[in-house]
Order: sequence, then structure tokens, then C-alpha cells
Amino acid sequence: ATRPKATTLFGKRGMSLEEELNDSNQYYRSQSMAVVYKKPTPIQIVKVDYPARSQAVIKEAYFKQASTTDYNGIYQGRYLDFEAKETKNKTAFPFRNFHQHQIEHFRACLQQGGICFVIMKFVPLQRLFLLPASELITRWDAQADGARKSIPLEIVIKQGYEINYQLNPTIPYLSAVDQLIAYQVKRSN
Amino acid sequence: ATRPKATTLFGKRGMSLEEELNDSNQYYRSQSMAVVYKKPTPIQIVKVDYPARSQAVIKEAYFKQASTTDYNGIYQGRYLDFEAKETKNKTAFPFRNFHQHQIEHFRACLQQGGICFVIMKFVPLQRLFLLPASELITRWDAQADGARKSIPLEIVIKQGYEINYQLNPTIPYLSAVDQLIAYQVKRSN
Ligand SMILES: [Mg+2]
Ligand SMILES: [Mg+2]
Repeated sequence: ATRPKATTLFGKRGMSLEEELNDSNQYYRSQSMAVVYKKPTPIQIVKVDYPARSQAVIKEAYFKQASTTDYNGIYQGRYLDFEAKETKNKTAFPFRNFHQHQIEHFRACLQQGGICFVIMKFVPLQRLFLLPASELITRWDAQADGARKSIPLEIVIKQGYEINYQLNPTIPYLSAVDQLIAYQVKRSN
Repeated sequence: ATRPKATTLFGKRGMSLEEELNDSNQYYRSQSMAVVYKKPTPIQIVKVDYPARSQAVIKEAYFKQASTTDYNGIYQGRYLDFEAKETKNKTAFPFRNFHQHQIEHFRACLQQGGICFVIMKFVPLQRLFLLPASELITRWDAQADGARKSIPLEIVIKQGYEINYQLNPTIPYLSAVDQLIAYQVKRSN
């Protein structure tokens, strides 16, 4: 048997964060642990050809701005909703990675009782965190009062939950979700 | 004030079932009652042009089979997952409108505790129902034992919840969801 290469611990070779999460979601579904999918990219279709005897071909289309976040689904009766983001920054996560409509979507889902978060990757550090959406929203809103336009790494470490890459699932984010839920339950008691 | 036309009661003029549901979901979001969206159609992109100084143009792409259902979201802490389907049939809803992977997706979501259903429209009758996914699955599975390949209207009436078109939201399906939840709570006690 070949031993897994050490690099595997930093994510599967050449996979993007999105691919790693899709891979992890597939694992979670196969184990009946959760049902979570990446939403398809919204496309504005302008022109479609229907060649005889073969499948329809889209000939002109444009990328549309997504109105929500990247991922949603269900885990043990709870609605999960999250966004995945990477940064090349080493000390803080810049807000320019987020859009106002994503913040509003998080706000609406939190109000309905959803479990909402960001999975953020500091690429140069090879460190991954689950940051609760509530923390993101608080700091996003504070920008209007002149607060900084990024979240410092030390805050992400303190308010978030670090996720360590492993073999299967590549990104075991449900363990971090368990911690977030346990924290919320404790706070509400 | 103009009186709403009688035809409005049969859905907004010229709208498809999907458009009516999108419209209803927008209403529910605007009233902070639920956060539900139609998932974008999955597309396999083959060729993209990046013209100088203008937005990317998709030049070749294909429609992909969706792996899940049409709609999902959150309502009062509960995960909702549903498919919308129309038939021209007057007496039964044919199974050919469903795919095996949609049935499996419902099964997986129900196992996680989701609220799963089909919104079915009998177009010639202008009648709309919410049918619980559990009922669909039972009858789908029975096909293997030679049972019929459709669900009779009388079963949909008996096991489902009729939804009457109204002005806003056009399709007030959350009332039917409330009935489904109340029924499940009663059964589990
Ligand atoms: Mg993303
Ligand atoms: Mg459909």
C-alpha cells in the first residue's frame, strides 16, 4: 500500500477550495451525514441552437451575479448556508471578497434560524477556518462607522473554528459546524 | 381602485408555474417569512470569450441534468426542499415527470429531517397541490412491484394539500407547508 503523500494534508493536489468542498460534500452525502450542494453558477442564456438529432447548444450566454451564497443544504435537521472564499493575504481577510447581497442573504437566513458561515482559506498559510456569519455581519456593518475593511487573522482565530485538512473528507467542516451549534446552544441557555 | 380580474385567481396571466413560484418566493422573502430560491439550471461551459473591455461571453455550453430538486431554503428553522411539476393530464400525475435522482435526493433530505414535497399543477383543471415527498416515494418504489406509473388525482387530493391561487403571494404554499408540519408533529406524538 502506498502511503498518502504529506501534501495531501494541505488539500488534494491541485484542487481549488471549491473542488475540495464539492469532494467533501460528496463524501458527507455518501455517508448519509448531510445533504449539501454547491449551487450552479447562474447564467443568462441569450441564444440556443437546436441541431437536428443532437442536444441543444448554448451559443451565447453571460455570467450573472449570484443572489445568494455558494452552498446550502441540510445537516441533522438544520439548514446550512455558507460561502467559500480564499485570500492570498497572510494577516487579514479583506471584505472586498464579499458582496452586500451575500451579507443580506446571511442576515435573512440567520433570522429564520439557519446555521450560516464562511469557510475561509488563507492560501499562503494553508489555514482554513469556519467563521460564523454573525461575526462577518457585525464587522461588515462596522465599516460604515469607519472600522477596518478586513477581518484580522487573530479575530478569525478567536471567533472562528479552525479546520484541518484530512484524507476523507478533505475538508471536515461538519466538525466545526458541531462546535458552532454547541456554542449557540450554550449561549441561548 | 381597479378590481383584480377573475383570471388572476388562476395564476398571473401568462406566467409559468416556475415564474409563479419565483414570484411567491420573492414575496415571502420581502416579508421575512422564508428564504427560498430556485436553483440555477446547471450548465456545462465549454468555451468562453473574453473580449477586451467587455464582459465574458459564453460561446459554447450545454444543459446538464440537475442532481437535485428545483427549490430549497429555510422556513422558521426548517429546511424546505421541493420540486415543481405540471401535467396536462386530468386524472393522474405521471411518474415520467420525475427522475430517479430526484427521488434519491428527497430520500436523503427526509432522512436528515427536511420538509420535502412536490408542488404539482394539473394544468387543465387549474388545480395545485402540495404532495409530501414521502407519498411520492412510496408510490414510486411500488412501481417495481407492478404498481401503476402515475399517482391518481384522488390520491393527490387525499394525501396532499390543495393550494388556491391568490393575489400575493400568487402561490401561498407556506400555508400548505404549515399543514404538513402540523400533521407530522401530530403523527410523531
Ligand atoms: Mg465563493
Ligand atoms: Mg421542475
